[in-house]
Amino acid sequence: MNPRELEPLFKPRSIAVIGASTKPGKIGHAIVKNLIEYGFKGKIYPVNPKAKEILGLKAYPSVKDIPDEVDMAVISIPAEKVLNAVKECGEKGVKVLVVITAGFSEVGNEELEEKLVKTAHEYGMRVLGPNIFGIAYTPHKMNATFGPKDILPGGIAFITQSGALGIALMGWTILEEIGLSAVVSMGNMADIDVMEVSEYLAEDPNTKVITIYLEGLKPGTGRKFLEVMRKVSEKKPVIVVKSGRSERGAAAAASHTGSLAGADKVYDAAMKQTGILRALNIEEMFDWARAFALLPLPRGENAVIITNGGGAGVMATDAAADYGVNLMDPPEDLKEKFRKHMPWFGSPKNPVDLTGMATPKEYYGAIKEALYDERVHSIIVLYCRTAVCDPMELANVIIKARDEARRDGIEKPIVVSMIGGEDVYEAMKHLNRNGIPSYPIPERAVSALGALLRYARYKGVVKQ
Amino acid sequence: MNPRELEPLFKPRSIAVIGASTKPGKIGHAIVKNLIEYGFKGKIYPVNPKAKEILGLKAYPSVKDIPDEVDMAVISIPAEKVLNAVKECGEKGVKVLVVITAGFSEVGNEELEEKLVKTAHEYGMRVLGPNIFGIAYTPHKMNATFGPKDILPGGIAFITQSGALGIALMGWTILEEIGLSAVVSMGNMADIDVMEVSEYLAEDPNTKVITIYLEGLKPGTGRKFLEVMRKVSEKKPVIVVKSGRSERGAAAAASHTGSLAGADKVYDAAMKQTGILRALNIEEMFDWARAFALLPLPRGENAVIITNGGGAGVMATDAAADYGVNLMDPPEDLKEKFRKHMPWFGSPKNPVDLTGMATPKEYYGAIKEALYDERVHSIIVLYCRTAVCDPMELANVIIKARDEARRDGIEKPIVVSMIGGEDVYEAMKHLNRNGIPSYPIPERAVSALGALLRYARYKGVVKQ
Repeated sequence: MNPRELEPLFKPRSIAVIGASTKPGKIGHAIVKNLIEYGFKGKIYPVNPKAKEILGLKAYPSVKDIPDEVDMAVISIPAEKVLNAVKECGEKGVKVLVVITAGFSEVGNEELEEKLVKTAHEYGMRVLGPNIFGIAYTPHKMNATFGPKDILPGGIAFITQSGALGIALMGWTILEEIGLSAVVSMGNMADIDVMEVSEYLAEDPNTKVITIYLEGLKPGTGRKFLEVMRKVSEKKPVIVVKSGRSERGAAAAASHTGSLAGADKVYDAAMKQTGILRALNIEEMFDWARAFALLPLPRGENAVIITNGGGAGVMATDAAADYGVNLMDPPEDLKEKFRKHMPWFGSPKNPVDLTGMATPKEYYGAIKEALYDERVHSIIVLYCRTAVCDPMELANVIIKARDEARRDGIEKPIVVSMIGGEDVYEAMKHLNRNGIPSYPIPERAVSALGALLRYARYKGVVKQ
Repeated sequence: MNPRELEPLFKPRSIAVIGASTKPGKIGHAIVKNLIEYGFKGKIYPVNPKAKEILGLKAYPSVKDIPDEVDMAVISIPAEKVLNAVKECGEKGVKVLVVITAGFSEVGNEELEEKLVKTAHEYGMRVLGPNIFGIAYTPHKMNATFGPKDILPGGIAFITQSGALGIALMGWTILEEIGLSAVVSMGNMADIDVMEVSEYLAEDPNTKVITIYLEGLKPGTGRKFLEVMRKVSEKKPVIVVKSGRSERGAAAAASHTGSLAGADKVYDAAMKQTGILRALNIEEMFDWARAFALLPLPRGENAVIITNGGGAGVMATDAAADYGVNLMDPPEDLKEKFRKHMPWFGSPKNPVDLTGMATPKEYYGAIKEALYDERVHSIIVLYCRTAVCDPMELANVIIKARDEARRDGIEKPIVVSMIGGEDVYEAMKHLNRNGIPSYPIPERAVSALGALLRYARYKGVVKQ
């Protein structure tokens, strides 16, 4: 495919909302509202034969009445009326259709779905959906969904085959302050599919990592999926949650989406070949995505744990073994450097244990040693709340150390885990907002670094 | 051992704080403050030769000057002064010592530690510690720690071998609203050990589940640990995070606590034999503990998933396979019952998919069917945020259904997972406060139910 074809889907200059509604609570109302309130920079044209004005915008009886070019039409009208609207869009010269409406192949109405796509193609239009909650692209301030409004901008693209889950996760990303570049609801994938969207996003400068919630592929598309995703993985990290791992889960997925869930082992092997990172669940997917969105890739295998709690250090050490993170044995001269930042009963081995007496000053010192030593490639900072070390101050010295190293041309991934109460939670948010991914338990920080390493190895950034 | 011996450790009528301090920031100040402000009902006697009054309480030059019986003495003075204080406590007739002070075997000073215990035993006193952050027992409003003050009362006892991690986790349980019966910092375990504390808590009517962060046992105590914990598991569920799983982690644990970490496989096999539930990390440990603290054990293997999102249902189905949760195939008559609460395109199979159109009413109906059908033994409720189903209303109908069934003598575990933003987060907190454990991703809810089932099988409540 030519990725340019999807340009109007992500960067339309004008959007018609067919089925726009004056009634709060209606999907056709929510979409217009989200478009306006999220600050879409292009033109918005509500289409509704019974309304003169919707949310302060002039409404048109038909898309054909709009006195302007229309790049994208979002369609949210009853299924039986969709075909006619598609025709009108075609005659109008619309480039891409976002078909929200349900009631197609997912309920056995394959025929109507085929007609929909056929008609669209006759006019040279592409179709996203049907049976979706819409699309958002934050760099253009476009929220053409009926999901939550205030999507946080960021480097993570999120593609979802499940509508309900996708909308719910949009809300969750806001709560968790996870920044998104795009949200794409795939629905029945009658025309545009996961591969094509991934190819487009691989070229998108605003997207750093692509996340996909996948339930299954259409029969016969497995090989193509591998070919395409291999190319995409060369350009951007791709993280997939492929549900239907178990036999019963696969059966449930098949009945849910109508797509072939397939033998999980085949998927699993295929994903590994293509460089796709497979996460076990959505929490893990976004944990990893956050790291990819914020951090440089490690340039080598050597990781160092810096902690004020022996217990946290031990847990992270176990996790390092689980997730393929190599904890280096610091050479004597590096141990000596670490030793300067701890009391006599600390440990300069790896985990570097600054002890419970560590203040932000000792953390700063030890992190700087690790940043400026060429033999260290990535850093895991762990913190257990103590009275002598304020979590927000600690967050700030971590940011400071990272910034200073950056000014000296040193870029290394730092992941953080902080354990404690409300003030620790706030400090972690502060770190996340400042480009350092932070996690509530050490294992999740190590898992995220492990994902960075796997991708760095796949890309050859780290020599295996 | 005779568990009665630990009675003064959990339910002292009076506490002397030796090394109580007038200076905020000092450990000896924090402990007195926590005791007062958390509302300890017994007497508190600060001991400090240089102060007349500490935080409004009369201070005494020596424990021997206190004009009252002293059940427990918390000792927070320099290591070299501890022996003398121990002697004075012995002469005073103190029953149990909580030795906060560090600088004993953990830094190679085994001799001083042995003397400490020997001296205490000569006077018939027991010793918790040294090198600990204290002990808390919420039913008696005793917070004799220098950790966070506002421990939430509840049914989970938390025993920790790591001090820094333990204090940090105390803060975390407050943030996460996890209710605790007791927090016990074990430190060097010079006298009282994890087994003895577990035996005591097994008899404690305020403790429903025992959680242990364990790094290693003393050499030669492995067999005894198995014998004791087997007995404890018969009475209460015991959840352990045993760190040092990996070779490197074990080495780190050994250098951290000085205790023998041991071959992990041996631990793992031994724990299974004794009925101990081994969690992979602290998040999982408290996820499970919350379920044990709040829920009845399932009386059989048949679990049902009720969801409004197909995707969430598929993920939970996968997790059920991972965690040994058996999803029943509903018989025709039960399917018919479920069908009453969904549109025609819903699914009465398991997962029971109420579809994205489900309101609290449909959830209520379906949950009641599952509660009142004898063939269903446990219920997993999943929810993806939708416009038609308010999360707080949903939380309330789940509570209502549970309460109505309970009044009819029906007790079944219900675990919930809700995906969405701020209002969903609030609804989950509401559920947790009302005795229904709720988790941000379906996998964690299923994992918790899996732990209940494993314990129910071990206890013979569920026939295998």
